[in-house]
Amino acid sequence: MTTDTPRKLRIAVLGAGRMGLRHARNVAYAAPRAELVGIADPKPAVLQAAAAELPPIRTALDSMDLISSPDVDAVLIASETSTHASLAVAAIQAGKHVLLEKPIAVDVEGSRPVVEAAAKSNVKVMIGFSRRFDESLGEAKAMLDRGELGTPYLLKSCTNDMFDSTGFFVAYSKASGGIFIDCGIHDIDLARWLLNTSASGKKEVQRVYGSGTNVRHPELAETGDCDNGMGIIEFSNGARAMIHLSRTAVHGHDTVTELFGTEGKAVVNGNPAINRLEIRDLHGVRSLSHPTYYERFKEAFVNELNTFVKVVLDDDKVPTPPEDALKAAQIAVALTHSFRTGVPVDFDEEGEPILK
Amino acid sequence: MTTDTPRKLRIAVLGAGRMGLRHARNVAYAAPRAELVGIADPKPAVLQAAAAELPPIRTALDSMDLISSPDVDAVLIASETSTHASLAVAAIQAGKHVLLEKPIAVDVEGSRPVVEAAAKSNVKVMIGFSRRFDESLGEAKAMLDRGELGTPYLLKSCTNDMFDSTGFFVAYSKASGGIFIDCGIHDIDLARWLLNTSASGKKEVQRVYGSGTNVRHPELAETGDCDNGMGIIEFSNGARAMIHLSRTAVHGHDTVTELFGTEGKAVVNGNPAINRLEIRDLHGVRSLSHPTYYERFKEAFVNELNTFVKVVLDDDKVPTPPEDALKAAQIAVALTHSFRTGVPVDFDEEGEPILK
Amino acid sequence: MTTDTPRKLRIAVLGAGRMGLRHARNVAYAAPRAELVGIADPKPAVLQAAAAELPPIRTALDSMDLISSPDVDAVLIASETSTHASLAVAAIQAGKHVLLEKPIAVDVEGSRPVVEAAAKSNVKVMIGFSRRFDESLGEAKAMLDRGELGTPYLLKSCTNDMFDSTGFFVAYSKASGGIFIDCGIHDIDLARWLLNTSASGKKEVQRVYGSGTNVRHPELAETGDCDNGMGIIEFSNGARAMIHLSRTAVHGHDTVTELFGTEGKAVVNGNPAINRLEIRDLHGVRSLSHPTYYERFKEAFVNELNTFVKVVLDDDKVPTPPEDALKAAQIAVALTHSFRTGVPVDFDEEGEPILK
Amino acid sequence: MTTDTPRKLRIAVLGAGRMGLRHARNVAYAAPRAELVGIADPKPAVLQAAAAELPPIRTALDSMDLISSPDVDAVLIASETSTHASLAVAAIQAGKHVLLEKPIAVDVEGSRPVVEAAAKSNVKVMIGFSRRFDESLGEAKAMLDRGELGTPYLLKSCTNDMFDSTGFFVAYSKASGGIFIDCGIHDIDLARWLLNTSASGKKEVQRVYGSGTNVRHPELAETGDCDNGMGIIEFSNGARAMIHLSRTAVHGHDTVTELFGTEGKAVVNGNPAINRLEIRDLHGVRSLSHPTYYERFKEAFVNELNTFVKVVLDDDKVPTPPEDALKAAQIAVALTHSFRTGVPVDFDEEGEPILK
Repeated sequence: MTTDTPRKLRIAVLGAGRMGLRHARNVAYAAPRAELVGIADPKPAVLQAAAAELPPIRTALDSMDLISSPDVDAVLIASETSTHASLAVAAIQAGKHVLLEKPIAVDVEGSRPVVEAAAKSNVKVMIGFSRRFDESLGEAKAMLDRGELGTPYLLKSCTNDMFDSTGFFVAYSKASGGIFIDCGIHDIDLARWLLNTSASGKKEVQRVYGSGTNVRHPELAETGDCDNGMGIIEFSNGARAMIHLSRTAVHGHDTVTELFGTEGKAVVNGNPAINRLEIRDLHGVRSLSHPTYYERFKEAFVNELNTFVKVVLDDDKVPTPPEDALKAAQIAVALTHSFRTGVPVDFDEEGEPILK
Repeated sequence: MTTDTPRKLRIAVLGAGRMGLRHARNVAYAAPRAELVGIADPKPAVLQAAAAELPPIRTALDSMDLISSPDVDAVLIASETSTHASLAVAAIQAGKHVLLEKPIAVDVEGSRPVVEAAAKSNVKVMIGFSRRFDESLGEAKAMLDRGELGTPYLLKSCTNDMFDSTGFFVAYSKASGGIFIDCGIHDIDLARWLLNTSASGKKEVQRVYGSGTNVRHPELAETGDCDNGMGIIEFSNGARAMIHLSRTAVHGHDTVTELFGTEGKAVVNGNPAINRLEIRDLHGVRSLSHPTYYERFKEAFVNELNTFVKVVLDDDKVPTPPEDALKAAQIAVALTHSFRTGVPVDFDEEGEPILK
Repeated sequence: MTTDTPRKLRIAVLGAGRMGLRHARNVAYAAPRAELVGIADPKPAVLQAAAAELPPIRTALDSMDLISSPDVDAVLIASETSTHASLAVAAIQAGKHVLLEKPIAVDVEGSRPVVEAAAKSNVKVMIGFSRRFDESLGEAKAMLDRGELGTPYLLKSCTNDMFDSTGFFVAYSKASGGIFIDCGIHDIDLARWLLNTSASGKKEVQRVYGSGTNVRHPELAETGDCDNGMGIIEFSNGARAMIHLSRTAVHGHDTVTELFGTEGKAVVNGNPAINRLEIRDLHGVRSLSHPTYYERFKEAFVNELNTFVKVVLDDDKVPTPPEDALKAAQIAVALTHSFRTGVPVDFDEEGEPILK
Repeated sequence: MTTDTPRKLRIAVLGAGRMGLRHARNVAYAAPRAELVGIADPKPAVLQAAAAELPPIRTALDSMDLISSPDVDAVLIASETSTHASLAVAAIQAGKHVLLEKPIAVDVEGSRPVVEAAAKSNVKVMIGFSRRFDESLGEAKAMLDRGELGTPYLLKSCTNDMFDSTGFFVAYSKASGGIFIDCGIHDIDLARWLLNTSASGKKEVQRVYGSGTNVRHPELAETGDCDNGMGIIEFSNGARAMIHLSRTAVHGHDTVTELFGTEGKAVVNGNPAINRLEIRDLHGVRSLSHPTYYERFKEAFVNELNTFVKVVLDDDKVPTPPEDALKAAQIAVALTHSFRTGVPVDFDEEGEPILK
């Protein structure tokens, strides 16, 4: 008794660095309806190392080799941020579906070509806003959609990374667009998603205020960045978001989402324990935390991938289209500008921040 | 075998409303070194009801009767906010020690006479910033002072009151000075206390930004108030505070303090359970919360009172002098102004907010 | 305006050791309707030290001096366990009300005279089962009484004391009656109280099984004691209790009560944090625990005292009469016997354990 | 650039019921080094339904068709408990590696043939003690092995299933061997694993005492079963286990493991929340629980499978050999006997329970 093999989505992963390899493993081993057919990276050593940990697949130093291959249905772009947009546009134009790691670009202008290319195409283009695919955040959203929280009016969101004594972030910061874009894009996306801010279709944001301080990395000030950024986002529907981004957490990666509704409040990860083990010893009653975002969200990345596969194979609506990344980037850029200038940034009727 | 009776501080309570009666009970029954000698309230019925629940003491419709009495060593002022300042000044001038419920006044100007009277006097004048006397917040401060949290750089503080469907807050709001003063004064005081912001003696605050929204009480907008207020305070020492004040919590009173230091973070009341009982039933795994701030802080009020008694009897330094209330009020007023105008408020070199 | 002074209960405390002094302080400072009139202890130095911390009151080396004094309405007995019963009987016979620290005696026979004397008298005799006066356990009982937990069928209760490296418990053990009596009497009382086991009035217990092991104090085996005792109590109403008593906890005193009902479960102190402070640092996400039972139950002792005062002054029913202590002692003795012999102990129709 | 395909373990799943299908899905989609090659079930409808949810593989009404197939390297037995042993023996004799769902049989005698067949064979035979593969329990074990908890001396373990109002358990109970075997085998295995009780190689258990009560399913008494079972296990190394098994939890499946060591205590799943979402609404501050054991342990089943695959492919030592199931079954049977007779069961020098 044998049935026809169902169609599998043939995915190539572009970028074989840390996240690229993780994504490739997920495609190979954790996505039943997908098949990993190739991986690309311009650095031979990185590519070789990744290939050694994966099933036998095509490897390429030039991503275009995979983008142009007829055996590839979709690409998952996890390369350096600076290459995201051009690879995405190339893939879209080659008729490939795209799952694109956030951010599209470190600035708003760099993001527009992807939004435009996606709009003109028939392929699915999905942004990797991984948190939306987290089980607990998804359940908060489901409660909201079932009306169990009433009208949402405030999101408090923080993304606090563990302090990295190697100074990596200082070098990384220069190319990252700064903490509001690199790190805050997730919090901003959650705010837009959970506060239903785009419902009206009109001007979404009225005003933002950004602040920040350098606690452990004073040299970040040279590039207009900080290691602790805070912001208030004032949406036109009356909802507010308060965000806090940090590179200086001591106990681990700590990302908390508090969604306030008129009928109740949902808190996700209020207790940032990595697992269900609690220790009671001379240090007290305690749990250990996640070292990085990846331990916190690894199942979310799998969910995200399987959602993408389903979106393509079943022609579902893309839950996180490029427009969402563009709008989040506009807010992040406005927060950055406000932090640097000390004045709030208003938005015009077209939804663009007015950067004075 | 009998020894001499140690001296007790003879305290009169001014104001016999809800908080006045609670304070009077504490003086009578929970302050071993104090003695309740009188209570005053201009409303005969209120006064009568309070007296019925207290040991036999003097009662007065006119607070001045107790303030001028030679049998009174100190007064605890828990009357209507609008009377705080004048009663305090009168008591100070009569040579009485004063424990004064916050705020001194609903604006900054109203607070100055108390600060000045106290400065010229030899009596102890202490502001009832009750949270500083909470055991858990006190332990956070102690950890900080022992260096266990490193340098503090951020305080997140929220005071979220349970939604009151009676509309009481709308009427109350008009005379209260608004949510940033009435409710936020505590959060602001905690920020100043826990972030060591007054250490330098110079300009303490650089800039504040206030925001807000009306979620359940739209009519508050008429008086320039809101039922959810948010703010960012930028201190000159680089530290930041993010505060959130709300009248619309569903599950109970919820007041959380998160103190971020370079060596660790202290969280007070992250789990807002009223006691040690957890219920596991069809509603899940759950605890109940405090209905109001009083259940949360009732031991703190006792601590505060006994601290005041000790300050007077042992000639200790006042931990919460009127200057602290004045400075907190300046910040609260600046946040209110910023919320109303949509622009940040800067502070001048004298530490005064520049209200444009 | 002055009213008559309401009557206060004049209490003498017998025993000025650690617990005696704590009780005396509570009578003096935390019981509005009581008055501390005297304290007795046979050790002059102990008596002197206690008196120095108390308001001026009578002191006596001989408890009988206070028991026989016409100025004493009631005695609080917190002396050495071996003297509890005789002092209680003497006080009852002198017409004094009695609040008696548990246990009445280290064995069942020693407890009977107090039960009998109380039965023949008109005075109130109340046993200090302090946990019944804990706010959280009281709320669990209230839920039960309101039917919110359905029919209770299992109590898991543990009393885990922090390991004491001084070896104090080894010496203490000899006169204490062993861990099941000294420590377990509380857990057994909670089981009887929360499982409604005495409702029928008939034979309450069917059988008990005791077990134990010596983890850090092997020398306890010489006196038939252990540093970790466990037991199962099988009540005639079908309910069961599982108890665990320990002298070897590492993180602090840890006392958890889990009450299972057909409609829900109540857990008290599942998270044994001493206060509302949570620390997040290199040791993880953590809280500190209570060092001893006293920090955990200090408010319960105050509640207990005020309940006793009210029972006497208002002629209320005694919530914890000597019979409760006798019955708990019978169960504790049976558990001890079972632990020592390795066989369960059955109870006869009169409710007495059959010790073979 | 292509490398040789690494060898994959070809697994057939025997049993296509609820757990069989779950296991088959795991083999197909969550075990990178395994391949699902077939599934068997005697019920055509069950088989058909399972096949529809799996990739195209062989199906068989007779498990022997797959056991005897040369294309099958290993079988995962998840059929009805009564068939476990005979299928396992047949597979072993056919030279197939075996991953066998617990229990081997509902009694001890039924388990021996599998132990013996495994001992005589060269294949790997592993028992599905899934909890050992749970991340949090694994981390507790790792702490223990690193010495961070000192010497373990007590395990408290409970397996509390949510009450099933359909009465399914009553019918199920008759063939299940009773609650101590069906449900308690996991807790017993954890006790042996975490208390290092088999270290000496000698008589492992001295005595057990079982108790129980019927709370919601009185008819279970007819078959000598109960819906709440409790037990104390006294190991020869001095360690103790207290277990509680229940079919009557209200809020969900609740399985807690408390491991007491001389240097610290590990608690797993003390807060039985299904995910990281906490809700704060009119029901309090709350989380939802796992409906069944599967939601709690689903990742453990994947881990278990991948461990089995690695054991076979890399010739690793089997972590959970059939002897472990046999020994756990002996203890479970002894607890059942003790519960039914009211007397403890001692073990002889060969480690067999003396069932009088």
